[in-house]
Amino acid sequence: MHAADISPMRIAVLGAGGLGSAAARMLSQKRELRLDALVDSRGFAFDPDGLDAEAVLHAASERGGVAFAPKTGAPSDDPIGEIVRRAEAFDGVFLALPNLPNDFVPGVAARFAAGGYRGVMTDALKRTSAAERVLKLDELFKTAEIVYIVGCGATPGLLTAAANLAAQSFAEVESVRIWFGVGIQNWEAYRATIREDIAHMPGFDVESARRLTDEEVAELLDERGGKLILEEMEHADDAILEAAGVVSRDCVSVGGVVDTRSSQKPVSTSVVVTGVTFEGRRSSHTFTLGDETSMAANVCGPAFGYMKAGRRLHEIGAYGAHSSATVMPRFVR
Amino acid sequence: MHAADISPMRIAVLGAGGLGSAAARMLSQKRELRLDALVDSRGFAFDPDGLDAEAVLHAASERGGVAFAPKTGAPSDDPIGEIVRRAEAFDGVFLALPNLPNDFVPGVAARFAAGGYRGVMTDALKRTSAAERVLKLDELFKTAEIVYIVGCGATPGLLTAAANLAAQSFAEVESVRIWFGVGIQNWEAYRATIREDIAHMPGFDVESARRLTDEEVAELLDERGGKLILEEMEHADDAILEAAGVVSRDCVSVGGVVDTRSSQKPVSTSVVVTGVTFEGRRSSHTFTLGDETSMAANVCGPAFGYMKAGRRLHEIGAYGAHSSATVMPRFVR
Repeated sequence: MHAADISPMRIAVLGAGGLGSAAARMLSQKRELRLDALVDSRGFAFDPDGLDAEAVLHAASERGGVAFAPKTGAPSDDPIGEIVRRAEAFDGVFLALPNLPNDFVPGVAARFAAGGYRGVMTDALKRTSAAERVLKLDELFKTAEIVYIVGCGATPGLLTAAANLAAQSFAEVESVRIWFGVGIQNWEAYRATIREDIAHMPGFDVESARRLTDEEVAELLDERGGKLILEEMEHADDAILEAAGVVSRDCVSVGGVVDTRSSQKPVSTSVVVTGVTFEGRRSSHTFTLGDETSMAANVCGPAFGYMKAGRRLHEIGAYGAHSSATVMPRFVR
Repeated sequence: MHAADISPMRIAVLGAGGLGSAAARMLSQKRELRLDALVDSRGFAFDPDGLDAEAVLHAASERGGVAFAPKTGAPSDDPIGEIVRRAEAFDGVFLALPNLPNDFVPGVAARFAAGGYRGVMTDALKRTSAAERVLKLDELFKTAEIVYIVGCGATPGLLTAAANLAAQSFAEVESVRIWFGVGIQNWEAYRATIREDIAHMPGFDVESARRLTDEEVAELLDERGGKLILEEMEHADDAILEAAGVVSRDCVSVGGVVDTRSSQKPVSTSVVVTGVTFEGRRSSHTFTLGDETSMAANVCGPAFGYMKAGRRLHEIGAYGAHSSATVMPRFVR
């Protein structure tokens, strides 16, 4: 079936922070997927014939929320509930939501299942515990006829998938090491993400990072020259690769460097998979991302690639919880 | 479902050259897949309780064919037909057959479909025209209830899949460049493969390469210090990526260096995917294979990873022609 033969997937993007905004912009360039709803914490914008992403994002940034989008926006105390109530209007839901608290993304997923949504869901979550909770909803998704693909961003996502591919050459995988570089010129556009990163640093946890004021975050970044070095992060690549049968989670490590003062990446993002072949030879495959690709491109691109793949799975009735290591994403035009 | 809960896939390997032999050896280390049949041009070995791969390969090399395998071997004028006649005894068939002539692999696939086989098939074919012919059998596979995954080796296969993954970061893919290094100490173990490689060189075509005697091949290799440099090869990565909607085939190039006198790779095998992101930035992702991994590991590992993935597709009734760029392989234990 050619793309031209089928109507575009009607997409709701939950979250209008850095990632959600980028997702909306990316969708405005696609013909196979169409942005019909965008949600932030105080409202939502919805048009069953497709939103004008730039108009919605402009209103959001000028006036303080997607609720102010001309004609399509509306304030709400429960904007996610507004989308659930319109479940039949969507073929795909992308959860570009904060990871914290850890039960937020799984809770939203469960709400869609309970609310009668029957379509595809993908997320760009990061944390192991969140991914595990989503994977445990497998039966719920099956009953609801939802195809949920967990961990569809960059890491977990693109790099998890690359690790699964690389593993195929080996009889036994010994280690998967993900080391990322992120450069963002303006951390204020990624307030939630930066706090999630800080939560991985020594002396912080999820709660204490979340309680930091913007001034405290700025001070912490000043002390470190704008760079956060993160090691042994709780990233869901481990649980996803373990669930896919590739490697024990203890053998997966994720870390990296976030530079909040330059859009240049401080290091190239890569995943190195080391294993032993069936002949007993030890070796490593490496997948390296080009430095010029942004976090937004590496997260939202795969997320929509998995969304398109999810549509095929939905067509053949393969409902339930899948992951970036069990589904091959499809290129979206 | 855990591997321990399900019976192993009963596998037939068609072809007992370098790749087929490696495939048989690899299977002897797996518990999720079991080698029940091995076929060469003059006979077959079959045991519905699993073959002893080493015993079969030893008999084949000592006495000139798998037909001489103790208890399990038998000569045949039509050894592939013997497997087709036992179609119900197999869950998976791996075609480790020569690519030449171009209709050989598609012809064997069609024979299995016509013969009542209902299972998974994967191949390690190389040539574009062969892959296209297999993809055209989609309806035949659907009717026969076969899941066929085309191009499941290294290239096409592992590297095609990596190219599809890498493409996800881009709005438009400009080029996919695969450059491989192969080191084989003993080219006589890969007689058919080497002739296929020679067919890609200036002054040769499929027919003239096939007609070369072993002495002529040895002489040609002597003239080149044992190294074959191959550019713009007819490799099916192009048709497979085009069929998956990633990129026009003209933008895909495959080449490399084959050293027939050293098991060390003359260059590292890699795929470089260059594209432009949704923000308009040009960049390249690179997937590089570790030099210590053999061609056998990089071909047969993915081929069986796709075989296992094919089993899932078969369970949910997703019959038809798939490819290494549309299915995510599963790690096999």
